[in-house]
Amino acid sequence: MSQPADGRKTSSTSAPPRRPAVANPGPYVVFTPSGKRGHVPAGISVLDAARMFGVDLDSVCGGRGICGRCQVLLAEGAFAKHGITSAASHLSEFSSRETRYAEKRGLEQGRRLGCSARIHGDVVVDVPPESQRYRQIVRKRAELRDIEVDPLARLCYVEVAEPDMAHPRSDLERLLDALAEQWNAHDPAFDVALLPGLQKCLRAGKWKVTAALHLIDRGSAAGGREMLCALWPGFHERALGLAVDVGSTTIAAHLCDLASGAVLASAGMMNPQIRFGEDLMSRVSYIMMNPGGDGEMTDAVRTAVNTLAQQLCDEAGVQKEDVLDAAFAGNPIMHHLLLGMDPVELGGAPFALASGMAMDAFARDIGISLNEGARCYALPCIAGHVGADAAAVILSEAPHLAEEITLIVDVGTNAEIILGNRERLLAASSPTGPAFEGAQISCGQRAAPGAIERVRIDRESLEPKFRIIGSDLWSNEAGFAEAAADLGINGICGSGIVEALGEMFLSGIITPQGVIDGALSARTARIQAEGRTFSWVLQEEGEGQARIAITQEDVRAIQLAKAALHAGVRLLMDHLEIDKVERIVLAGAFGSHIDPLYALAIGLVPDCDVARVSSAGNAAGTGTRIALLNAAARAEIESVVRRVEKVETAMEARFQEHFVEAMAFPHKRHPYPHLEAAVNMTLPRLESAEAGAERPRRRRKRG
Amino acid sequence: MSQPADGRKTSSTSAPPRRPAVANPGPYVVFTPSGKRGHVPAGISVLDAARMFGVDLDSVCGGRGICGRCQVLLAEGAFAKHGITSAASHLSEFSSRETRYAEKRGLEQGRRLGCSARIHGDVVVDVPPESQRYRQIVRKRAELRDIEVDPLARLCYVEVAEPDMAHPRSDLERLLDALAEQWNAHDPAFDVALLPGLQKCLRAGKWKVTAALHLIDRGSAAGGREMLCALWPGFHERALGLAVDVGSTTIAAHLCDLASGAVLASAGMMNPQIRFGEDLMSRVSYIMMNPGGDGEMTDAVRTAVNTLAQQLCDEAGVQKEDVLDAAFAGNPIMHHLLLGMDPVELGGAPFALASGMAMDAFARDIGISLNEGARCYALPCIAGHVGADAAAVILSEAPHLAEEITLIVDVGTNAEIILGNRERLLAASSPTGPAFEGAQISCGQRAAPGAIERVRIDRESLEPKFRIIGSDLWSNEAGFAEAAADLGINGICGSGIVEALGEMFLSGIITPQGVIDGALSARTARIQAEGRTFSWVLQEEGEGQARIAITQEDVRAIQLAKAALHAGVRLLMDHLEIDKVERIVLAGAFGSHIDPLYALAIGLVPDCDVARVSSAGNAAGTGTRIALLNAAARAEIESVVRRVEKVETAMEARFQEHFVEAMAFPHKRHPYPHLEAAVNMTLPRLESAEAGAERPRRRRKRG
Repeated sequence: MSQPADGRKTSSTSAPPRRPAVANPGPYVVFTPSGKRGHVPAGISVLDAARMFGVDLDSVCGGRGICGRCQVLLAEGAFAKHGITSAASHLSEFSSRETRYAEKRGLEQGRRLGCSARIHGDVVVDVPPESQRYRQIVRKRAELRDIEVDPLARLCYVEVAEPDMAHPRSDLERLLDALAEQWNAHDPAFDVALLPGLQKCLRAGKWKVTAALHLIDRGSAAGGREMLCALWPGFHERALGLAVDVGSTTIAAHLCDLASGAVLASAGMMNPQIRFGEDLMSRVSYIMMNPGGDGEMTDAVRTAVNTLAQQLCDEAGVQKEDVLDAAFAGNPIMHHLLLGMDPVELGGAPFALASGMAMDAFARDIGISLNEGARCYALPCIAGHVGADAAAVILSEAPHLAEEITLIVDVGTNAEIILGNRERLLAASSPTGPAFEGAQISCGQRAAPGAIERVRIDRESLEPKFRIIGSDLWSNEAGFAEAAADLGINGICGSGIVEALGEMFLSGIITPQGVIDGALSARTARIQAEGRTFSWVLQEEGEGQARIAITQEDVRAIQLAKAALHAGVRLLMDHLEIDKVERIVLAGAFGSHIDPLYALAIGLVPDCDVARVSSAGNAAGTGTRIALLNAAARAEIESVVRRVEKVETAMEARFQEHFVEAMAFPHKRHPYPHLEAAVNMTLPRLESAEAGAERPRRRRKRG
Repeated sequence: MSQPADGRKTSSTSAPPRRPAVANPGPYVVFTPSGKRGHVPAGISVLDAARMFGVDLDSVCGGRGICGRCQVLLAEGAFAKHGITSAASHLSEFSSRETRYAEKRGLEQGRRLGCSARIHGDVVVDVPPESQRYRQIVRKRAELRDIEVDPLARLCYVEVAEPDMAHPRSDLERLLDALAEQWNAHDPAFDVALLPGLQKCLRAGKWKVTAALHLIDRGSAAGGREMLCALWPGFHERALGLAVDVGSTTIAAHLCDLASGAVLASAGMMNPQIRFGEDLMSRVSYIMMNPGGDGEMTDAVRTAVNTLAQQLCDEAGVQKEDVLDAAFAGNPIMHHLLLGMDPVELGGAPFALASGMAMDAFARDIGISLNEGARCYALPCIAGHVGADAAAVILSEAPHLAEEITLIVDVGTNAEIILGNRERLLAASSPTGPAFEGAQISCGQRAAPGAIERVRIDRESLEPKFRIIGSDLWSNEAGFAEAAADLGINGICGSGIVEALGEMFLSGIITPQGVIDGALSARTARIQAEGRTFSWVLQEEGEGQARIAITQEDVRAIQLAKAALHAGVRLLMDHLEIDKVERIVLAGAFGSHIDPLYALAIGLVPDCDVARVSSAGNAAGTGTRIALLNAAARAEIESVVRRVEKVETAMEARFQEHFVEAMAFPHKRHPYPHLEAAVNMTLPRLESAEAGAERPRRRRKRG
């Protein structure tokens, strides 16, 4: 036969295949969109034909006309293209089973149940996306790959033989027999917690049950084994998963449908550990001062995850018992506390992780209550200060698959830095301190309603305008005063400070050295002397409003923080022997709020095409969701993390030198041509700035 | 080289091997008793040389002179035999490490540490039994195979690299690296419960720890994987195991050293479930009447096992945390309750087990608290009424390895019957009822101090004598009256009833039909009319003593019980197409107390050479211990249980026929030549008995 028997795509699928000259080879079937094709015995069901050729056609009920997952349709118009001339009549008539299904659950015009429709003549059968087990979730940003849905848990509806005294075999064994025969699931392991309810479940379902098989032990030589983890009487078609990013401030979770990958509900809640300390280091200190404090924090975070899970299930109108899998990411300290490990070792050199390895366990073993047999997965940590959240960002942003050099920074008290491409990937952390979170800034505050988050300064008048969280109006627009009065303006959040400093630099208020230029007090009353330095006043004190100003101290604090981050990036660039990056991702809660332009303007990151700098605040959440939905993604991130080269900034002599150079705006030594193009001006350079506080010149747009 | 490089035994180990004619091939070493041999590089340690040739030489510390498990000695006198002419000086001098070990822990004269002694010339090295990892426990009874000790858990002392900021790797990963490098343990799984204590343990041990690796997932395609289950700071050399036989009345446990197989302590305790019902069926009834009753009973049995484990550890002066493995056997109902499965389905047809499969889990998952990472194993059940205890008996008695046909019966309310040999093995259960346990017998009682357990009847005078539990005296011996007064004689226990009936039959008091012969009242006042039948009085009522008699009703009850058992055996014999068995094992608490002669005399079992009928009351316990100590034994019993042919007596038309025939003493149709030889008389046969109550004739001994 010229046709490959296994149904693999021929090299040219568009050309009509030559028909083999074999006597009575059976009807010829082509599946679209896969292009898999071949002869089948007359009368075979479409589902069986699909299995014969390895066509991805879903089924939960195993071909019993219950689940409707195997819906197909005749690929109209594709007949001629595939060398088939006749059509619809080559499928069996609409069966009573299909009629029943259509009445009960609805069946779109033209749709057939693949398990019911039988092939009697040549046909082209189309498998619509929702009937494919392996699905893709198309992502909006062009540089991101689509998410492949291939969850670790699968549901299998089985009909189990009743007990027979003539052939005594236990209920479990007959269930396993049924799974082997009806689902080709051979010798799965089984969860001992399933045993107590097994007999009642089988009898309640009148020997028809739905089993959840979960892939476990992927790391073993055999590459994994299935485990019988859950059981429902009768037909059950809902399998859910939970993706959780445990942040120091916020715990964010998505409830997903494991079959479609769809997000059914999302929610975030405050990390209750905040009562033990605002930032990570104060929580570690709490544990050092309070023996057993790690246990308290572990309980707190687990309780919060359980509460969040229940809340998401309520919101989506589903049962918590339908949640069969959970994936977790978090920074190393959150990761350790969630898994019950004391994080104090992470509080000081040599910053040893207890375990950075990916972890696969029963959710119940880490105190998370979903379905009793639900599994959970923690993404691997990369190093003592580069956590599972960074691993999740890698999964989402996929720098390890690209040719271009990608820089990912997640800015917190410690900045996590990932740099590289498919050849090499490096990671480091840099101690930025809490300045970006609004701490150590005179008018800084956490990002909350009323906080200033956007700032613009007119280059000529040096008059500013701003926006606050909770309102879309600029401060110079009508109605702003009312909105501000409602919310109360208390300070500037981290991203607002970055914008303020960026604008101050671009408008010449701050010199490249980081000095607030007192000479400008002649041009604007907003430059005010405070001792020997100057401040820039964004809002004067008045009735019901506080004075909000950027002091010289504030500028220094941000300089130190951004220099630490930038120096870490330069160190990795040295290791890679590169002097520019092609794509930048600003990740994390803070990163997602920074305007890429100002990240460049203050020199938080090296110069880069502004269009190639993106904020991806939910990248860790997305990466966690990918790990939840796809077994191969777990293996992938584990392998990537193993080969990531960890650079310890504290151990590198050049770090200090990079740090000093990075104190300047945007950088002492490295030019920012992309930034200059974007703002249409030539930036002042440190050398000229040192000579005197030269004002930046606006450049006329070409053309 | 003519010498096999891999050190495998040559076909004739007694002949001196030809020395190879290769230039400087290094010293030649022969290990005894294995006979493994070959050339080694000069200066290699004996331990490394042993590993080179696959010689079984133990080590826990990995060759650091700590554990002393690798002790060897020069095989004096073996030199010439092995073609080696020179000797002791060919090992290195006694090292300072050996001196230190000898001072600290003692080292017998002539012993060397294999990890310290180095080979500089040809030597013959003897590995004493206690230095072998795979040991044998020699068993007393000749027909039993020795127990091979090859436990699932092994201890590995490792030196873990300290954290290094230049090469950041988590503590767990460095521990796994050390296990891979120092113990060749690659990619073990790890217990998530180990994570919380990991860092403290490594630091407490100053980066030296002992890890327990446990073989899990034996059923997988890869044949198993090791799991890191426990960790101790520093060197730890104790690994213990618990073998538990959960009986309906008694829970019996052995605490074993996993390395040597030695039993450190044994104890039994009353099964606290007794408060829910004396026998199995009354406990099942309790559950049927009391929803949640299964949970109560599960709690009760688990608490009892935990108490017993603590008691054994106290007795042996060891820590419960050193117990790393546990093996469990029990009848199907006890098995189900221990594992948390409701046994009500076992209370009625079709008697479906929830699971009969062998089960491997964390002990904590079934509520047993040993080391937190301890594993547990439940032997498989054979069928609804043939439990894991029967499987344990098979492991102990090994009928599946023998050529001879072995019959194993465990008599309880349900008799469990195993019959066969290495070709085929059959199993059945038969509803004997509670008569053998002393219930339904007018003067029956549980086996307890004061119960009559031995009975003899003089063939001429028909005068009986008896013995009671708690005294070694016969009732006609001096001092018996005092002992009896102390203990109080209240009734006859099960084995005593079998003896009484056996003696009554052999002395002609009972006819083969089972009728107490009233005509004999002329010869003895102990035959007394009670209505239309007669009783035989063993003890008359008197001051402080009750009347104890065997009534016609009692005889009928035992006839029914023994006929049920015997019929089940005959049914299996039919299936095997055999008419005699070559070996009989009476197992279980009851079986171990029955005198084989009387088991034959009442026809409880088919005729067999009395010397080949043995009581093995502890066979289930021994089998459980074998499963605890040997991984291959678990695989073996699982495979044997899978191929055991289950016969459901209730489904077999011939059962009733066999039952009726087996009512007679010893059997209506089958002769008992071995019994006749043993008692030196011709037994009355039913045909003649039917003609008239003919007295058995004593036969003169030949020769």
